[in-house]
Amino acid sequence: MIRGFGSDNFSGVSPEVFKAIEEASYGHQHSYGEDIYSEKAIADFKAIFGQDIEVFFVYNGTGANILSLSSFIRPYQAIICAETAHINVDECGAIERQSGCKLLTVPTFDGKLNIGLIQNHMHDFGNQHHVQPKMISLTQCTELGTAYTPEELKAICDFAHAHDMYVHMDGARLANAIAYLGCTPQSLTSEVGIDVLSFGGTKNGMLFGEAVIFFNTSVKEEVPFIRKQLMQLHSKTRFIAAQFSAILKNDLWLKTAGHANRMAQLLASEAAKIPGIRITQAVQGNEIFAIVPREKIEQLQKECFFYVWDENASEVRWVCSFDTTESDIIEFVNLLRKELC
Amino acid sequence: MIRGFGSDNFSGVSPEVFKAIEEASYGHQHSYGEDIYSEKAIADFKAIFGQDIEVFFVYNGTGANILSLSSFIRPYQAIICAETAHINVDECGAIERQSGCKLLTVPTFDGKLNIGLIQNHMHDFGNQHHVQPKMISLTQCTELGTAYTPEELKAICDFAHAHDMYVHMDGARLANAIAYLGCTPQSLTSEVGIDVLSFGGTKNGMLFGEAVIFFNTSVKEEVPFIRKQLMQLHSKTRFIAAQFSAILKNDLWLKTAGHANRMAQLLASEAAKIPGIRITQAVQGNEIFAIVPREKIEQLQKECFFYVWDENASEVRWVCSFDTTESDIIEFVNLLRKELC
Amino acid sequence: MIRGFGSDNFSGVSPEVFKAIEEASYGHQHSYGEDIYSEKAIADFKAIFGQDIEVFFVYNGTGANILSLSSFIRPYQAIICAETAHINVDECGAIERQSGCKLLTVPTFDGKLNIGLIQNHMHDFGNQHHVQPKMISLTQCTELGTAYTPEELKAICDFAHAHDMYVHMDGARLANAIAYLGCTPQSLTSEVGIDVLSFGGTKNGMLFGEAVIFFNTSVKEEVPFIRKQLMQLHSKTRFIAAQFSAILKNDLWLKTAGHANRMAQLLASEAAKIPGIRITQAVQGNEIFAIVPREKIEQLQKECFFYVWDENASEVRWVCSFDTTESDIIEFVNLLRKELC
Amino acid sequence: MIRGFGSDNFSGVSPEVFKAIEEASYGHQHSYGEDIYSEKAIADFKAIFGQDIEVFFVYNGTGANILSLSSFIRPYQAIICAETAHINVDECGAIERQSGCKLLTVPTFDGKLNIGLIQNHMHDFGNQHHVQPKMISLTQCTELGTAYTPEELKAICDFAHAHDMYVHMDGARLANAIAYLGCTPQSLTSEVGIDVLSFGGTKNGMLFGEAVIFFNTSVKEEVPFIRKQLMQLHSKTRFIAAQFSAILKNDLWLKTAGHANRMAQLLASEAAKIPGIRITQAVQGNEIFAIVPREKIEQLQKECFFYVWDENASEVRWVCSFDTTESDIIEFVNLLRKELC
Repeated sequence: MIRGFGSDNFSGVSPEVFKAIEEASYGHQHSYGEDIYSEKAIADFKAIFGQDIEVFFVYNGTGANILSLSSFIRPYQAIICAETAHINVDECGAIERQSGCKLLTVPTFDGKLNIGLIQNHMHDFGNQHHVQPKMISLTQCTELGTAYTPEELKAICDFAHAHDMYVHMDGARLANAIAYLGCTPQSLTSEVGIDVLSFGGTKNGMLFGEAVIFFNTSVKEEVPFIRKQLMQLHSKTRFIAAQFSAILKNDLWLKTAGHANRMAQLLASEAAKIPGIRITQAVQGNEIFAIVPREKIEQLQKECFFYVWDENASEVRWVCSFDTTESDIIEFVNLLRKELC
Repeated sequence: MIRGFGSDNFSGVSPEVFKAIEEASYGHQHSYGEDIYSEKAIADFKAIFGQDIEVFFVYNGTGANILSLSSFIRPYQAIICAETAHINVDECGAIERQSGCKLLTVPTFDGKLNIGLIQNHMHDFGNQHHVQPKMISLTQCTELGTAYTPEELKAICDFAHAHDMYVHMDGARLANAIAYLGCTPQSLTSEVGIDVLSFGGTKNGMLFGEAVIFFNTSVKEEVPFIRKQLMQLHSKTRFIAAQFSAILKNDLWLKTAGHANRMAQLLASEAAKIPGIRITQAVQGNEIFAIVPREKIEQLQKECFFYVWDENASEVRWVCSFDTTESDIIEFVNLLRKELC
Repeated sequence: MIRGFGSDNFSGVSPEVFKAIEEASYGHQHSYGEDIYSEKAIADFKAIFGQDIEVFFVYNGTGANILSLSSFIRPYQAIICAETAHINVDECGAIERQSGCKLLTVPTFDGKLNIGLIQNHMHDFGNQHHVQPKMISLTQCTELGTAYTPEELKAICDFAHAHDMYVHMDGARLANAIAYLGCTPQSLTSEVGIDVLSFGGTKNGMLFGEAVIFFNTSVKEEVPFIRKQLMQLHSKTRFIAAQFSAILKNDLWLKTAGHANRMAQLLASEAAKIPGIRITQAVQGNEIFAIVPREKIEQLQKECFFYVWDENASEVRWVCSFDTTESDIIEFVNLLRKELC
Repeated sequence: MIRGFGSDNFSGVSPEVFKAIEEASYGHQHSYGEDIYSEKAIADFKAIFGQDIEVFFVYNGTGANILSLSSFIRPYQAIICAETAHINVDECGAIERQSGCKLLTVPTFDGKLNIGLIQNHMHDFGNQHHVQPKMISLTQCTELGTAYTPEELKAICDFAHAHDMYVHMDGARLANAIAYLGCTPQSLTSEVGIDVLSFGGTKNGMLFGEAVIFFNTSVKEEVPFIRKQLMQLHSKTRFIAAQFSAILKNDLWLKTAGHANRMAQLLASEAAKIPGIRITQAVQGNEIFAIVPREKIEQLQKECFFYVWDENASEVRWVCSFDTTESDIIEFVNLLRKELC
């Protein structure tokens, strides 16, 4: 199968990651986090995000998000998020099932929350018949490929904290946002007041594994037990840790994300020139949303796979990965031209 | 750190597994199970366990056991297991939390259930105040290193089915039981009536990943959704699948288990000769349970790590792995002699 | 406190109900449903709804709705309902917490679902990332005081069954709908294909107690256990049963509902004549929704309590009960006139 | 059916309770606890148990126990209780299902916990693979009809608090213990350090309703929401409250319990004189446990109902109620004599 634009989960493994696993695979190590690779990876995270954090490794994004949320809230409390949020539409109800909490959603134009939208759900505090909003979950980059600025994030965090609420960032594509904004990792997280971050690994060239980073460490004593009950504790932890050390080293995670972003920019600008194609969202990460003539989609998918995003609008999604090449883009744009022009 | 006898989770990765991951790591593949490696691994499992099975990949043993159980029972039903069962003592209550079900436990001498023990809980059927026994969960090899014979398993399965109940096998160390008994995989599972099997990968030389094998496939439509809600669906599934294909190829899983068993036999027979050491359970897998003079344990652990099993009885557990060598055994037995004699 | 229009939960107990409790309160009876009053009440329900039903008594509406839903669906499945549904907005997330299921909501003008609205959520069947719609929950009368006709209900039920889904009716105010439509109880339930009904007692002059009536009895073996785990099994069951026999006798439940409806009609028609008041929904049950000048609301509430429904729209809700009198209406209308004119 | 000795749930309603309901049943009252009867009943409880308590009304014992426990612990924590505890054997697994927590049980001779027994589970604190003991639940009177002394309770509470744990008392029959010990309500609860109490109503002559009394009020802000999600919030709260005021007035609850105790003493002493009957537990409340010749049980049950407690031991349970009369005892003892002598 040729490299398509289906998902960053379709890509393989960075050579650096592969090498790190190989090096970690010899000899015996204590299990369940008490190994030298875990120690090293946590130190690597602290070098980037500051010393006052707590880092927990988990298996996947679903687990990272649910551990983040469950560590702060109880079942009668609620999570405010965008209607398009991954936790709302792509988790088969796992958030409600696992946390017991209701999601309070708001429609958005570009996948981004703001205070005005959030305020739709800021009522009935103290009313025992109504769920109590306690957490805001936002995605960076959003599910629509857009990025929050530090100022936008700070406004949401300040609002949340003023109302005794917490903020979770689903950072499966945080690297793409940092690369786009050209800012530091801390300027989008600890410095603006994020309480807890799902830090993506799998979409960034790893085999498996995500990290949950607590900037608000008040719950740290409880997290190990919650993680265990959520079935997200890996025995041979060194194999998650070593991968993270590999992608954090020399900013590899930011370099690969920057590459994927550039490929997305290239694809978007070339595709936009083709009659019949309209780019529908600002391309600020590695995802492009585009309206494509309905009758051409099936044939295009056969030659180079991607997903339809909105059937009614004939809108599709193209995702670039760390291993997308300029040739892939050229080939795909040629394909688009052939079919559409 | 020298190789100790702490756990088969302390070991690394088989070279064959490592090679398989490398081969799978290039190029793009569909995610969430729709890749060629998953297809291949499922075929490999069918070649061993028969065509009429359903195979689902998960992350870890906790997930495998809970997916197995949750696929068959509802929260008001109960699971009968040994008091020593991993699902009862080592999962931080994850089974109750995730399935909602009560565990009905029985004390055993050797970790093995039998009909007499099970019958202690076979009452109050139809009584709405009482949980309804619906599933029996047994471990092969048991947590005490002993193995059920095919006849013993068949008796339990026949009993269960006669009472409209299901049988789950926690097979984290099934390979060791097969190697010990010298029988076929089917003779301990499909042929005796096991409904669902947690097939261990991580303890068998894999980086991560387990498989749940349904012999009773009546629930197959529901399993994918339950797995997703249990946060056990891996996006880059090829990396679990490829590992399984590697360990199943040419019976590698059975060869490595046989090797671990032989190392355990060697250690047990040599240790038994040392005054003050008493082997407490039949050694039928890769685990040895032994009483060791209390005052020597701490020093021994410092030089070569292992776990204390029963503080009161001064009983310890030694586990051999696929990569335990005869030299490791000799070195450790010498250490035992040095400290005890 | 004078009788207000706050809620039908503010009213007391019918004299007939009170008398029935008195008669049931002497002597000993078996507990947990094995008493003569339970037997009698179930027979009374069968005389009304047909012999092929199963009846289970519970404590309250929350319990009735959750028992209804939990008996049919598993956590990865979803419930389609109106945005205004009681189960969505007034239960502090208890449905999600207890069933584990996601609610898929649709906005409506009048609180009523229809096939067009439902179809917004009829997608992604078989997609493991997405909850699977399996149940439709509708309220009769709706939370906006409107009533479904038998034809409307039949269309929804036929649609549901054609898609292998179930239909639940929250019938806290079913009596008001029957009284309004002048039809038989069966014509709104068993005859149109409702699978399970929450039959309201507390809002109909009872002290406490609701009934869940299964027209689809395929799940009957499981219901007693689910009810027990949901903490909805009353020990002295006779005291719920005797109340139901009292309100079912000689159609008392329909007579009191008809009275409440007439009081609502009277209030609505009189209030509509007052400048500044606008009735916003068709009055088909015992509830009236009206826009009232914002600055008058607080003073009105002080003299005669009612709830604000929609703060932004300055819309209030007035509810009539079985014990609302014509004098109450006259007094309240005079109050409205005094304040508004 | 003649009055038997099956359960205190078989009895009806005290005349005083009935009268209180009648008085409360007229006119309108705010719902969900904002009524004058709730205010009054809470004041009545404070007059007995002290001003520094929080009182929450619920429907039944299952709900009272689960609200008590869920208010203090999270799913990875565990509850230590006697093997015979109602929460362990009679709730169809509702505690595990609702709290998510594991019950750690200990066998007892007389239904009573003590520090020695509790210590069996006081290990693995901080071990993420193991549930964390956080609450002790004891029953007063126990399920075997025995009563803890204030000293015994204080020892357990002191031990719990020294280990940062909480103590719950299931007080479905607390009145019987107070009547037996001749002490004050506070001397068995607030003064010894109980954190939360399930205060029984239904077994004490009420139609329905229990109260949860928090002596440790640190969780009071959360309780209303937890109660709502547990489906234990009654709309017409006045009808639970008024019943409690009735049984608390002039110590009616203690007088009726004292009467039931005396009836139990009478029955026990008379039955003990009959050859073939052996009383197996100290009779300290309203329950008697007795070994009766196996072949006589069925015929006895036919004439006067009671439950078999332990089939293997041929042990039965006889329960006296507030409405058991001396004539009932004489009649039953004559029956025993007739069948056994």
